[in-house]
Amino acid sequence: MQASLENHQPHEVVIIGGGFGGLYAAKALAKANVNVTLIDKRNFHLFQPLLYQVATGALSPADISAPLRSILSKSKNTKVVLGEVNDIDSEAQQVILADRIIPYDTLIVATGAKHSYFGKDNWREVAPGLKTVEDAIEMRRRIFKAFEAAEHETDPQKRRALLTFVIVGAGPTGVELAGAIAELAYKTLQEDFRNIDTSETKILLLQGGDRILPHISPELSQEAEKSLTQLGVIVQTKTRVTNIENDIITLKQGDEFKEIAAKTVLWAAGVQGSAMGKVLTQKTGVECDRSGRVIVEPDLSIKGHKNIFVVGDLANFSHQNGQPLPGVAPVAKQEGEYVAALIQKRLQGKTLRPFKYTDFGNLAMIGKNSAVVDIGLIKLKGFSAWVFWLLIHIYFLIEFDSKVLVMIQWAWNYLTRRRSARLITEKESLAFATFEDSHSRNNYTPANNRQPLNA
Amino acid sequence: MQASLENHQPHEVVIIGGGFGGLYAAKALAKANVNVTLIDKRNFHLFQPLLYQVATGALSPADISAPLRSILSKSKNTKVVLGEVNDIDSEAQQVILADRIIPYDTLIVATGAKHSYFGKDNWREVAPGLKTVEDAIEMRRRIFKAFEAAEHETDPQKRRALLTFVIVGAGPTGVELAGAIAELAYKTLQEDFRNIDTSETKILLLQGGDRILPHISPELSQEAEKSLTQLGVIVQTKTRVTNIENDIITLKQGDEFKEIAAKTVLWAAGVQGSAMGKVLTQKTGVECDRSGRVIVEPDLSIKGHKNIFVVGDLANFSHQNGQPLPGVAPVAKQEGEYVAALIQKRLQGKTLRPFKYTDFGNLAMIGKNSAVVDIGLIKLKGFSAWVFWLLIHIYFLIEFDSKVLVMIQWAWNYLTRRRSARLITEKESLAFATFEDSHSRNNYTPANNRQPLNA
Repeated sequence: MQASLENHQPHEVVIIGGGFGGLYAAKALAKANVNVTLIDKRNFHLFQPLLYQVATGALSPADISAPLRSILSKSKNTKVVLGEVNDIDSEAQQVILADRIIPYDTLIVATGAKHSYFGKDNWREVAPGLKTVEDAIEMRRRIFKAFEAAEHETDPQKRRALLTFVIVGAGPTGVELAGAIAELAYKTLQEDFRNIDTSETKILLLQGGDRILPHISPELSQEAEKSLTQLGVIVQTKTRVTNIENDIITLKQGDEFKEIAAKTVLWAAGVQGSAMGKVLTQKTGVECDRSGRVIVEPDLSIKGHKNIFVVGDLANFSHQNGQPLPGVAPVAKQEGEYVAALIQKRLQGKTLRPFKYTDFGNLAMIGKNSAVVDIGLIKLKGFSAWVFWLLIHIYFLIEFDSKVLVMIQWAWNYLTRRRSARLITEKESLAFATFEDSHSRNNYTPANNRQPLNA
Repeated sequence: MQASLENHQPHEVVIIGGGFGGLYAAKALAKANVNVTLIDKRNFHLFQPLLYQVATGALSPADISAPLRSILSKSKNTKVVLGEVNDIDSEAQQVILADRIIPYDTLIVATGAKHSYFGKDNWREVAPGLKTVEDAIEMRRRIFKAFEAAEHETDPQKRRALLTFVIVGAGPTGVELAGAIAELAYKTLQEDFRNIDTSETKILLLQGGDRILPHISPELSQEAEKSLTQLGVIVQTKTRVTNIENDIITLKQGDEFKEIAAKTVLWAAGVQGSAMGKVLTQKTGVECDRSGRVIVEPDLSIKGHKNIFVVGDLANFSHQNGQPLPGVAPVAKQEGEYVAALIQKRLQGKTLRPFKYTDFGNLAMIGKNSAVVDIGLIKLKGFSAWVFWLLIHIYFLIEFDSKVLVMIQWAWNYLTRRRSARLITEKESLAFATFEDSHSRNNYTPANNRQPLNA
């Protein structure tokens, strides 16, 4: 604790969460005259936009992950702490972990969001979502196990249910999942089985609203639907799920109810803020919206606490157009970088204009070398859009880890319809360590005389 | 069961195990006029020689695995069955699975070997070995968690124990593990931590005999020891482990005993035949050797049962030079291919010369772009050997799955000392499905009038 005895100890920035919001805040503070502590319960950053590729056996978890320590190894002012934050003490300016207390001058909460089953939490088991590596492994297990079970099933009805995949929610994740499963069933696995014809697989993509990919232009979402249909996906809009039970999913279309026998139901519908939102409400009185996202000020701080910021999927930022910004990587990234800039301004006694999100557009991969790209004036579809999608993702992957070859290989596998990461693993698999055992030793000693914010 | 009602139903070959022995037997029978059923409890073949790369975070499990179905998808006479064999009925010529019975005319048992702790089975927990993907994930977890714990440890003694890695056994696996951990500690992780200096890591490689890599020439094993020492590995020959308890490993060197505080002990010493060996002994009376390997006849069949063969690590074949052949991939591969050839000869009423293993030499990767290669007259060391090692492995990987880019990337990572597959996962992780649930439906109906062996 040598350093902590010196005067003018640098300003202590604590970041909770190593996703896009937290990681890019930390990266942007690498050269600043502050100490940064990034806390995460995992030892790696996850490139979530490609998670569906893990779920469908095209990539391995490590292909879309990078160790937080190695991403930040060059940031000498930054410490990575593995652990889970249980509580926040906004009076004493401390975050409380299972085994220690870490003081902060400025706190950035970037713990993201989890799935929402709209109150039907019993669906969580029968219709897994896709947020974590475990989720992806679980989806991969269910998808490939369904084909294995079908291969061994002789009852035609049961076999049909095993070969029926229902994806709930037609946002980017739902669309990309549906496309990937179609590729899998109608191309990749065609020759692998002896008793079943995988081309009999039924893939339903359900959307509550009247069109898929509502966040992109109507023309392009129409294009996307066309490509999906060509791939063999059955797209059903204006369709709500009313029940999932005993391998039967009940749909409501208008006033009509419909029952479909499906062994595999995948959830790509709603999200809700992570538990840290509730903690902030209890400890600071800040409001959350109906989906548990923290309502933030124009500068991403929370009401009454100028030194506590919320960024990424956990934040509800509605100061731009009345609507909360979408829970996508670019928003989290820009929010994290904004807060990093604001902190440095404040330390210089300056201020910074309110946060403004610059929308660089939207992409969605559909499959069969086809995608849709909606970037203001530029609207691409089909193969050109797919190549663009690929380049963008390669670019972002390189940013934190040289995964170029991974992406090239993936592209190659994709063109050749090869999916070799098809390991079937158990449900419990890949539960990541939270490090209680390795961290239950000493407590963190608070630093003294830390330079306060002149905000 | 249409087919089974026809006359002259082809000869039924059942293979238990999709490792090198079983897989290459199946591949060699692809064009034969037989039905092949390959049974494995996993849905993939594992390229075990590179497993240590997974254990040290350089490759992902899927990088060294290939789905059995896709490897054999072109073999139209071959069926892949996911399931675990519980028993064999050599009278009725059936293998018994949890959920069904599969009849055979010829049976090939290729279930491999597991670790032997020389009776000290309580060491299994404290000193994991490296045979399965789970083993590799567990080693990876322990290795990277040890560094994480050390980073958080303030007690110098505890920290030293956390930064001490002991590898028991200096065969190829032990040597390659030691080299990879040295790379990790002294190069890859150098800049990643803030509180510890990973160059203080102590890596001990213990060998009972008087030299490492006893299966290669003395000169080369000396070379290997030199390279390891240069890397920073402490090699201790003529050293036996007498106890592992409470993070203390007790060694016996001559008459001296020595205690070393080490949090991470990795087992690369003995192996023993898998459980199927015992089953064969009970059901056929065939003898096993002291390490549980089935003693096979010159044609790899078992005494008194010309239609039951044992290949790979489970087989003890001592007809070549009195010594049992080593448990390495090339032996298993050649044995599997021999049995496939013998079966076809027999069906033509012919016989085949006894099995003879062709030793193409030995390789071991040491690390720091260095390896040793011992191929009869050719003896390589250092970088040239490393490149050779790489090419050989690329060649074998391509054989069953185009993993070229994976290997190129791995080579690149290796040269740049990058190790990005450093996900820390829980102990229980990656327990592979055994498919009881998906297979407990119908029973396999035996085929009739199958053409008998004219052996």
